[in-house]
Amino acid sequence: MKKAPAILILSGTTLLLAAALIGVLIYLRNQPTPQRGIQPLVEIAQYEPDSSKWGLNFPNQYSTFLLTKDNKARTAFGGSEPYSKLESDPRLVTLFAGMPFSIDYNEERGHMNSLTDVRETKRVNEKTPGTCYSCKTANAPRLWDQMGPEEFFKTPFAKLGEKIDQPVGCANCHEANTMRLIVTNPALEEALEEMGRDWRTFTRQEMRSVVCANCHVEYYFKGEGKYLTFPWDLGLSADDVADYYNQIGFKDWDHKITGAPMIKIQHPEYELYATNSTHYRAGVACADCHMPYVRNGAAKFSSHDVKSPLFTPEQSCGACHTDVAYVVDRVKQIQNQVREVMDVAMDALVEAIGAIEKAAQDPQADPELLAEARQLHREAQLRVDFINAENSMGFHNPEEALRVLAKATDLARQAQLKAIQASSAVIQARK
Amino acid sequence: MKKAPAILILSGTTLLLAAALIGVLIYLRNQPTPQRGIQPLVEIAQYEPDSSKWGLNFPNQYSTFLLTKDNKARTAFGGSEPYSKLESDPRLVTLFAGMPFSIDYNEERGHMNSLTDVRETKRVNEKTPGTCYSCKTANAPRLWDQMGPEEFFKTPFAKLGEKIDQPVGCANCHEANTMRLIVTNPALEEALEEMGRDWRTFTRQEMRSVVCANCHVEYYFKGEGKYLTFPWDLGLSADDVADYYNQIGFKDWDHKITGAPMIKIQHPEYELYATNSTHYRAGVACADCHMPYVRNGAAKFSSHDVKSPLFTPEQSCGACHTDVAYVVDRVKQIQNQVREVMDVAMDALVEAIGAIEKAAQDPQADPELLAEARQLHREAQLRVDFINAENSMGFHNPEEALRVLAKATDLARQAQLKAIQASSAVIQARK
Repeated sequence: MKKAPAILILSGTTLLLAAALIGVLIYLRNQPTPQRGIQPLVEIAQYEPDSSKWGLNFPNQYSTFLLTKDNKARTAFGGSEPYSKLESDPRLVTLFAGMPFSIDYNEERGHMNSLTDVRETKRVNEKTPGTCYSCKTANAPRLWDQMGPEEFFKTPFAKLGEKIDQPVGCANCHEANTMRLIVTNPALEEALEEMGRDWRTFTRQEMRSVVCANCHVEYYFKGEGKYLTFPWDLGLSADDVADYYNQIGFKDWDHKITGAPMIKIQHPEYELYATNSTHYRAGVACADCHMPYVRNGAAKFSSHDVKSPLFTPEQSCGACHTDVAYVVDRVKQIQNQVREVMDVAMDALVEAIGAIEKAAQDPQADPELLAEARQLHREAQLRVDFINAENSMGFHNPEEALRVLAKATDLARQAQLKAIQASSAVIQARK
Repeated sequence: MKKAPAILILSGTTLLLAAALIGVLIYLRNQPTPQRGIQPLVEIAQYEPDSSKWGLNFPNQYSTFLLTKDNKARTAFGGSEPYSKLESDPRLVTLFAGMPFSIDYNEERGHMNSLTDVRETKRVNEKTPGTCYSCKTANAPRLWDQMGPEEFFKTPFAKLGEKIDQPVGCANCHEANTMRLIVTNPALEEALEEMGRDWRTFTRQEMRSVVCANCHVEYYFKGEGKYLTFPWDLGLSADDVADYYNQIGFKDWDHKITGAPMIKIQHPEYELYATNSTHYRAGVACADCHMPYVRNGAAKFSSHDVKSPLFTPEQSCGACHTDVAYVVDRVKQIQNQVREVMDVAMDALVEAIGAIEKAAQDPQADPELLAEARQLHREAQLRVDFINAENSMGFHNPEEALRVLAKATDLARQAQLKAIQASSAVIQARK
C-alpha cells in the first residue's frame, strides 16, 4: 500500500485536533459556573442557608460580610451600635405607650447579628408568629420553599425557631451558583406583582436596590395567619401607606394613653428612597453607597460589610462626587435640619397625646370630636414614625422627609385642638 | 566727510523704531480702558443713570437688558407676568389685613419695568418715603452720592421722584469705565460691615451674587428718617431675622383682625440662598443661573435679560448639569413639595387668625394668653412670608424652605391653641 503523503497526514491531524478543541469548548461552555470563567470550588445547593459554604467560592464578599458582626460604630443619628432609643429620647415611650416598642427599642446592629438580636429582644413573646423570622435569617428562603409561606408565617415563633440557625446571609439575596440577585421574600414578590411590576425584568442596577426591599420596608401581618404583607397598593409614600391602612381599617395596637387605633411603622428605607429621591432618580442603587466597590489586591468587589456610608465616604460618595468633604458636610446639614423638624413634630405629638388624655377623662367630652382627635393622632404619628423609623434621618429623601414631618406637625397640632374643643367646657361655651 | 556704512544706518534705524514702538506700547498700557484691550466708544461718567449710554460700549449686554421690558412669561410659581397674587390666593388678603399688600400685590415684572411699576402700585401714598426708590432706579447711586443717603431716604417719595427718570440699570451694579461689580446700596454696605465683611475683598464670583443683594433682600425703614436697613445682625436665616426684629421691638403694622404686631417680609432671595443652600455652597452665583453666558456671533457674554432660569435651562442648568430634562423635573418636584407644605402652613395661619379674632371679641378672655397668641401669630406669619415672598418657591434652598415652613405651621397652630385657651370658657373650666 502506498503511503499517504506527509502533507495529508498533517492536515488530517490538524482537523482532528481542531474538532476536539471545539468539542471541549462547547462542553465547557455548557457547564454551570458561578461567574463566567470562574470555576467554583464547591457546588452550592439551592437556598443554602449556611453563608460560610458560599464563602468558599467568594472569600472577599464573605470576609467583608463577617465584619457586620462587629461594625458597631455610631454615627450622629444611627450607625450600628445597639444603644437604647427609648433612653436617648423618652418621648418615644409616650408615643409607643401600650405596645412592645415602648419597652425595648434599640438601634439595630449589622446583618450577622440579626438572629441573636431578634431572639433577645423583649418585643418577642409567646404570641409572636413565625413571620418575625422572615427578615432575620438565611434559613427563610428554603423554609418558604419547603413549608410554603402560609405555614411559615403561622407557625409560632418559638416552634419555627427550631429549624433556624443562621442570621441574614447570602441566600436572602442571591440565587445559588448563578449568584444573580433575586427577590426571595414572598411579600415583596406579591407587592411588586400587585403594582404590575415583575422583578425578573429589572436591570441589574434596579436589583441592587430591590433586593434590599426584601427586608428594609414597612410591612404588616395580614389576618389570622399573620401573612407578611407590604402596604404598597396605593403607592410607596407615607401618605399612600396611611391611606392604605385607613382603607383596610387596620391597626397594630390601641394607644394606651389616647385610645387611638395606631400603626407602628417599620424601617421604610426602600419606600422613602424610591419616592422620587434625587439619588434614586439619578439611578443610584442602595448598594452603590452601602456596599461600595473596594479592592483586595487585584480583585474589585462590592463590600458586603453593609453599613452607613458615613464610614466609607471616599468609596461611597467619592465614586460620583469629586468633593467628598463637601458632600459629607451636606449630609450632616440635611440630617440636622430633619432632626430639628422631627423634634418639632414629636413635641407636638406628645402635647396632643396629653390633650386627648385629659379630654378622655372628661365624662361630658364630645365623643365625635374626641374620635376625630384620635384619628388625627393616628395620622400624625404614622407620619412621624415613617421618618423616625426610617434609618437615614431623612437623608434618603430630604425634601420628602421634611414634607412628611411638616404635615405630621400640622396633624398633631390639629389633634390637640380637637381634644381641647372636645372638652365639655368648650362645648358649653358654644351653647 | 566719510559716509557711514549702510549696515550702521540700518541698525540705527532699527533701534530707533524699536524704542518708539516700546514707548507707544507703554503709553497705551497706561491708558484707562473699560476692559483690557477694548477701547470704549464713549466715556461714561461716574454713577451715570442712563443705561443707554453704557449700552454704546456694551451693545450685547444692553440689548439683552432691554428684553427685561417684555419678558412677561409665567412659570408654574412665578415668572414675570404681573398677575394678582391676591386674586390667585385670597388667603393673602387675610394674612395682610390692615396693610397695603392686602390691597395690591402683583408678581413683579422685569428690571426695565421697575420704575413704572413702583409709581403705579396702590401701595404708594403721600406718606411713602423716598427710601422706596432705592431699588427701583439707576438714578439712586448718583443721588446717594450727591444728597447723602439720609437726605435721599427722608425726602417724600413724590418729591424725590422729580429727580428720577430711569428704571433699574447698569449703575446699580457696575462701576463706570472699569465695569467691575460694586455694592452701591448704602444699606448693603452697612449690613456687610456690621457682619465684619468687606465686599472689596470678595472674589468676582462672590460679587456675582452680592450685587443682587443690593435689592433682592429683606429690609426695613429704621426710625423717623426711614433709613433703609437690612436686619442681618444676628444672621441671614428666617429665625435670625425674626430674632432681630423681636430684639429691636420692630413692627411694620398691627394686624387688622388679630391686633398682632406684624412684620412684612420682602423678597429675601439672597438670604435664603446664602443660608447654606447646596448651590451657594458649591460656589454657584445668582448670575450663573439667572444671567447665563450666551453667544452673539463670536462674542460670549452674560445675558442681562435677568429672569427665571426655567426659561433658559440649557444655558442656566446645562453649564454644570449633563441631564437638563432631569434637573428641570427636579425643580418642578421640589417646588410642588414646597407649595404643598406652604399651603398647610397658610391654612394653619388663617385658622389661627380666626381663633384670635374670636377670642379677642370675648371681654373675659385671658389677656396674657391672648398676647401670647398674637406673638405666635407674628412669628408664624413672618416665617411663612419669608418663603412666600422669596421668589423661587423654595428652590433657592429646598431643605431650609421646608424647615422654615414646618416650624411656621407649628407656631401657627400653637397660636390657634393659645387663642382657644384664652377664651373665658376654657379659663372657667380650669378653675
